[in-house]
Amino acid sequence: MSEKQRPSGRAADQLRAVRLTRNFTKHAEGSVLVECGDTKVLCTASVLEKVPPHVRGSGAGWLTAEYGMLPRATHTRGDREAARGKQSGRTQEIQRLIGRSLRAAVDLEKLGERTLHVDCDVLQADGGTRTASITGAWVAVHDALEWLVREGKLPVFCTPGSENAPEPPPEGAKSFLGRPGERLANVMRDQVAAISVGIWNGVPVLDLDYVEDVACDTDMNVVMLGETSLIEVQGTAEGVAFTRVELGALLDLAEKGIRELMAAQRAALA
Amino acid sequence: MSEKQRPSGRAADQLRAVRLTRNFTKHAEGSVLVECGDTKVLCTASVLEKVPPHVRGSGAGWLTAEYGMLPRATHTRGDREAARGKQSGRTQEIQRLIGRSLRAAVDLEKLGERTLHVDCDVLQADGGTRTASITGAWVAVHDALEWLVREGKLPVFCTPGSENAPEPPPEGAKSFLGRPGERLANVMRDQVAAISVGIWNGVPVLDLDYVEDVACDTDMNVVMLGETSLIEVQGTAEGVAFTRVELGALLDLAEKGIRELMAAQRAALA
Amino acid sequence: MSEKQRPSGRAADQLRAVRLTRNFTKHAEGSVLVECGDTKVLCTASVLEKVPPHVRGSGAGWLTAEYGMLPRATHTRGDREAARGKQSGRTQEIQRLIGRSLRAAVDLEKLGERTLHVDCDVLQADGGTRTASITGAWVAVHDALEWLVREGKLPVFCTPGSENAPEPPPEGAKSFLGRPGERLANVMRDQVAAISVGIWNGVPVLDLDYVEDVACDTDMNVVMLGETSLIEVQGTAEGVAFTRVELGALLDLAEKGIRELMAAQRAALA
Amino acid sequence: MSEKQRPSGRAADQLRAVRLTRNFTKHAEGSVLVECGDTKVLCTASVLEKVPPHVRGSGAGWLTAEYGMLPRATHTRGDREAARGKQSGRTQEIQRLIGRSLRAAVDLEKLGERTLHVDCDVLQADGGTRTASITGAWVAVHDALEWLVREGKLPVFCTPGSENAPEPPPEGAKSFLGRPGERLANVMRDQVAAISVGIWNGVPVLDLDYVEDVACDTDMNVVMLGETSLIEVQGTAEGVAFTRVELGALLDLAEKGIRELMAAQRAALA
Amino acid sequence: MSEKQRPSGRAADQLRAVRLTRNFTKHAEGSVLVECGDTKVLCTASVLEKVPPHVRGSGAGWLTAEYGMLPRATHTRGDREAARGKQSGRTQEIQRLIGRSLRAAVDLEKLGERTLHVDCDVLQADGGTRTASITGAWVAVHDALEWLVREGKLPVFCTPGSENAPEPPPEGAKSFLGRPGERLANVMRDQVAAISVGIWNGVPVLDLDYVEDVACDTDMNVVMLGETSLIEVQGTAEGVAFTRVELGALLDLAEKGIRELMAAQRAALA
Amino acid sequence: MSEKQRPSGRAADQLRAVRLTRNFTKHAEGSVLVECGDTKVLCTASVLEKVPPHVRGSGAGWLTAEYGMLPRATHTRGDREAARGKQSGRTQEIQRLIGRSLRAAVDLEKLGERTLHVDCDVLQADGGTRTASITGAWVAVHDALEWLVREGKLPVFCTPGSENAPEPPPEGAKSFLGRPGERLANVMRDQVAAISVGIWNGVPVLDLDYVEDVACDTDMNVVMLGETSLIEVQGTAEGVAFTRVELGALLDLAEKGIRELMAAQRAALA
Repeated sequence: MSEKQRPSGRAADQLRAVRLTRNFTKHAEGSVLVECGDTKVLCTASVLEKVPPHVRGSGAGWLTAEYGMLPRATHTRGDREAARGKQSGRTQEIQRLIGRSLRAAVDLEKLGERTLHVDCDVLQADGGTRTASITGAWVAVHDALEWLVREGKLPVFCTPGSENAPEPPPEGAKSFLGRPGERLANVMRDQVAAISVGIWNGVPVLDLDYVEDVACDTDMNVVMLGETSLIEVQGTAEGVAFTRVELGALLDLAEKGIRELMAAQRAALA
Repeated sequence: MSEKQRPSGRAADQLRAVRLTRNFTKHAEGSVLVECGDTKVLCTASVLEKVPPHVRGSGAGWLTAEYGMLPRATHTRGDREAARGKQSGRTQEIQRLIGRSLRAAVDLEKLGERTLHVDCDVLQADGGTRTASITGAWVAVHDALEWLVREGKLPVFCTPGSENAPEPPPEGAKSFLGRPGERLANVMRDQVAAISVGIWNGVPVLDLDYVEDVACDTDMNVVMLGETSLIEVQGTAEGVAFTRVELGALLDLAEKGIRELMAAQRAALA
Repeated sequence: MSEKQRPSGRAADQLRAVRLTRNFTKHAEGSVLVECGDTKVLCTASVLEKVPPHVRGSGAGWLTAEYGMLPRATHTRGDREAARGKQSGRTQEIQRLIGRSLRAAVDLEKLGERTLHVDCDVLQADGGTRTASITGAWVAVHDALEWLVREGKLPVFCTPGSENAPEPPPEGAKSFLGRPGERLANVMRDQVAAISVGIWNGVPVLDLDYVEDVACDTDMNVVMLGETSLIEVQGTAEGVAFTRVELGALLDLAEKGIRELMAAQRAALA
Repeated sequence: MSEKQRPSGRAADQLRAVRLTRNFTKHAEGSVLVECGDTKVLCTASVLEKVPPHVRGSGAGWLTAEYGMLPRATHTRGDREAARGKQSGRTQEIQRLIGRSLRAAVDLEKLGERTLHVDCDVLQADGGTRTASITGAWVAVHDALEWLVREGKLPVFCTPGSENAPEPPPEGAKSFLGRPGERLANVMRDQVAAISVGIWNGVPVLDLDYVEDVACDTDMNVVMLGETSLIEVQGTAEGVAFTRVELGALLDLAEKGIRELMAAQRAALA
Repeated sequence: MSEKQRPSGRAADQLRAVRLTRNFTKHAEGSVLVECGDTKVLCTASVLEKVPPHVRGSGAGWLTAEYGMLPRATHTRGDREAARGKQSGRTQEIQRLIGRSLRAAVDLEKLGERTLHVDCDVLQADGGTRTASITGAWVAVHDALEWLVREGKLPVFCTPGSENAPEPPPEGAKSFLGRPGERLANVMRDQVAAISVGIWNGVPVLDLDYVEDVACDTDMNVVMLGETSLIEVQGTAEGVAFTRVELGALLDLAEKGIRELMAAQRAALA
Repeated sequence: MSEKQRPSGRAADQLRAVRLTRNFTKHAEGSVLVECGDTKVLCTASVLEKVPPHVRGSGAGWLTAEYGMLPRATHTRGDREAARGKQSGRTQEIQRLIGRSLRAAVDLEKLGERTLHVDCDVLQADGGTRTASITGAWVAVHDALEWLVREGKLPVFCTPGSENAPEPPPEGAKSFLGRPGERLANVMRDQVAAISVGIWNGVPVLDLDYVEDVACDTDMNVVMLGETSLIEVQGTAEGVAFTRVELGALLDLAEKGIRELMAAQRAALA
């Protein structure tokens, strides 16, 4: 495929550099700065000992997400939503996506009647802020769950049939997650990460930065639970429509990227 | 495939009865009541001789969409958004989807500096209101464009290089659209229709009604431009994640359903 | 009186054609499409098993009303109130009028601690939407009360002193209302209907359509409870003031029109 | 008629003491404190050299009104509407009524392209605040027009055909208004005043105070232009409906009261 | 110091005439019209038998304040905040200041679980509305506390160790406050009054009116508890910065003015 | 003075460690992360080529500031103001303070008809966020002005009488500011920095962290322009009032702290 060079100089299937900094701020139970190239998002997960009305009394917990962008995270200053008095449709769409994606990662029944409140605030934007938010927030959620375990509010291990009996961590366990059987596994179902893909100049490319995003005909966000299951596929063509074949190529790229992001998540937790 | 019977009694690949009633109300330039089974949406397309700031002065037009649900369109009465003082995130997400989908159908450069303002108001809801809105609103947009032609505000035919020269309709032309070469074809790119599909009890099914939607593990909305091009694919799994194979099966179903809806659109215009 | 011909061609004391379609939508306990000429309003009455704070604990129920107009119900598209973030003064004035009028029809003490929530949504406007709303909503309220009786939540008959004792309907009773002594009579006090009248070109005329309304010097809305009692008289002159004599003539016309509307209500219930 | 004594001790047809204090505050072009018994409303009329969009360019002016109640104008403290973030339906209904009533008094064509902005703020409420507002605001509007004349922005006298030619005031003219032919008469059509009447314990009574208003079955607000023309009649029965005969008796009372209020207006201007 | 004459003709250290009219309106437990020259503010203190969430259950009470300005209290008409749908930053800043200042005057522990809700509404503005509000509202708070004592809801005297034991007022006591040991002294800590000072044409001056305020380089509001304790010092320089020496001179002036205002408060209570 | 040990272990007159990181984000013309101990605020200054209405056409520029706190910048999660739909009174008060303070630093006449829009967003809060914002934002404003000079939009040097004539920078100039006569000096008047001081356990202390702030009787924020001029003094006592002597001691501490902060600003610019 003799393709045109991407503006970023990256190969079509190449992610931007990913960095996940845990404990970026000190108050939140989970606090992660995720950097995907020049996109920087602060993701915090707060544990609140209350639940929204629609799950109250059910014994189950809830996870909700909010998203914001600092006014000058972007090339030109955007309005501050707090000053304008309402969140844009885009903001609401994104925070609904983040919430749904992370709820897929957590067994809310086992969380207990509490809320994980995720906040994703974009400090600097260069494309892909919603997918970076999901990837980073998953680590923050992990850390908040670990905090619950450390505080004794969540059992370490639950065997089926004895749901609330805490169990000692396995010998030499360094991280609370990783693969089936390890700590947290009963409340954290699996990893969740997300990436954007798009058709740029007729070529499917991975992990769009701002310049590429603006020039793309089709733009797709993909969220996965573990390395094989899809939980969100959102493909949009404002300009040129796309075909089933192109959709397949985009999903192939997204799967490759997400596997790499999940490796980065595990490395950050190690 | 010995599948369980759908609550609606329909086959897995069977659409609900579709009805498109043109000129349902008298003031709008395009006004269509779309009924998909018990889902009933009134779609109007209004011609406004002004454009939003971001296209002003460009010579091009714009298309925007708003969506609403009457408070008692649903099983239990929902809050009236006008009384609450804001539109929900769900409403904003839907109206952004409708707007994007229909913009793909119209060549905004050729529309002239005016706005097609689409309103989709759900009179009765039984699942699939956003996709029914798109399918119905496309017909309303068609009728509004036809009105512009009748009023002499839009040329009938434009050959490349002589953009604004009106041309007589072809002999015996009954409808303003259909296939390349017919009237409106220069401003209306192609048909747009949409459908929902989902995995119900492990089986991919077409055109979810409310009861099925609630019970689905995965729910996907698909919008197409013409019979082969995708413009929106929005698949979501709140419960059980889905695989690439399942995604393929869902898209197959959606394509079949959308082809049938496009036939219904053409029949309504005949 | 050799008067000028009304734009509608109607006689000065002639109503527009009235149509009341019950069960227009399927979810609401009462759902009526009322058509007065080209004015079309969908009126639903929802039964909510809760009451607002100011009556809570009193044992009595409440009735409230909301009113809305679809953006393109009118000649030119109006703003969507949900998008603007607030209801106009006109909307609030109308929904307060509808609520007061229908509360006069219902014995809230006998309703029990529940709310009848009335929604009047104008699908197409051609003058007189607020009075059409009241006339149509009364039928929807009737149907919601009938639903309560059918569900066993409201007794059929109450004799004084034995307030909650259900009583069998009279032999051969076809409708739940009509005249004193019939079913529902204890909670539904009487019929309520409304009409507009105005002075057009110096002549008092009945049931103004949009064209006449715009040209009127005085415009009056009258609501009656049964065929002889007034519950609202709202006469307004923005242009030429009116005299006591003209007021009398307008009320005569209104009474005639309301008697005809009440006959239409009874016919719809038959 | 051996009626029951009114709580206020007044005769059925007796107004409360009326006091109109001009120039109550110093900044507004017209500023009047109106007191009807214990109801006290500060009415100001401001001259703004701009008009709202719907009259811009027409050469005509506009008059608009706003109404508010200080939080502790009432027996129990009410929410501050500015803090709640919106005006109630009641507030909007009242300010629309005040605006319509005063527009009937002013020939907007002759006002020139400017706005009279009326503000009625209730300092102390004891029933009848909306009618007191209208009666007091008319004097404030008068004073604002007089200010325009003094400033040379409005001609003193206009004879037909020479619309903008100022004319000297008649010899010995003390007031700018009174009867046809005097100063201001060309822009101020006539006096406007308003009163409430109601049926209290079965007896029609004039000028309801708070205690009577709460106990009334029917409550009616009447606004007149000059001593014989009606411009608003708003009768409402939440409790017991009223008859045509009662309506007549109420209008008789209202006319008597309004004549007395107009005498008080003229006395204040003398 | 051969200074330039102030626009008001007052000496540099001269207050405007102060007038405190108690019981200005009849519904509020405390109602005071404070006039400082042409600045006129109606201050009411309402007793509400409830407290905000953050003190609920603590046994202590709360005091909160709201501030507003009638639209035409000023030279040019300002927007009505209720109509605009939000309070300005200036309004919120002022009402927070008033609340903090008056909370310093009241021993909330001894108030009991109730709220003193203070409303300060500016009828006419000529500079210094926030400080006049504090000075006047203190008297209104005093009167509301006196009302609580009269109603038997607050003990007259409390000796340490027998906090809730009412005690007879001292022989011949005319006022509830004045100096330590008198009635109310246990819940009302001391007087609170406030004044503005500023540097006008290089000279520190007391009690700025509007014309002086606009021309000042530095503007400082000072609030005191009793005659020697500061509770708020808010000095601001938008134009020319100020020095420690100037700050001292301004505080000297402010102390002098506040002592005079406190004398006026005591005189009003006498 | 044998004082009690501060919770932070610092001496009474000791600042927290200050760190100013320039170019923290890449899009803004000025972007500074300011850290005062654990308080971390991202301050950006954006150059907008437009001005608000009240200075439009005057030739002068404007500077405005907005302030926000990430929801989990604090110990417990606070509401997101964008989601609540309005900024709190505290937020508005702070952003007005920041704006006023920085306007004192800039000669708006010389800025040209453009706006410096400052955004201060608290990433982590531990007391003193408003004063840290001012100190950090001054550096961001400096960098935005430097950017204007680099872009040729602002002259380097202006001698009186030749206002717009650019002049070459002095030989070997490293920084655009420092002392009179250097680059930027004509538009940047002087340094602005701010600090909080308070009386903790009876002892005046410098630079309160959160734990100390909560325990303080008096809390004062001081802003200075250069090392000797005050531009804001905001002292507040909610608990125990303060005396003139204490006020003096607090100002002494504040001046010392601000001198150190100004040294840190200069070091950051070096």
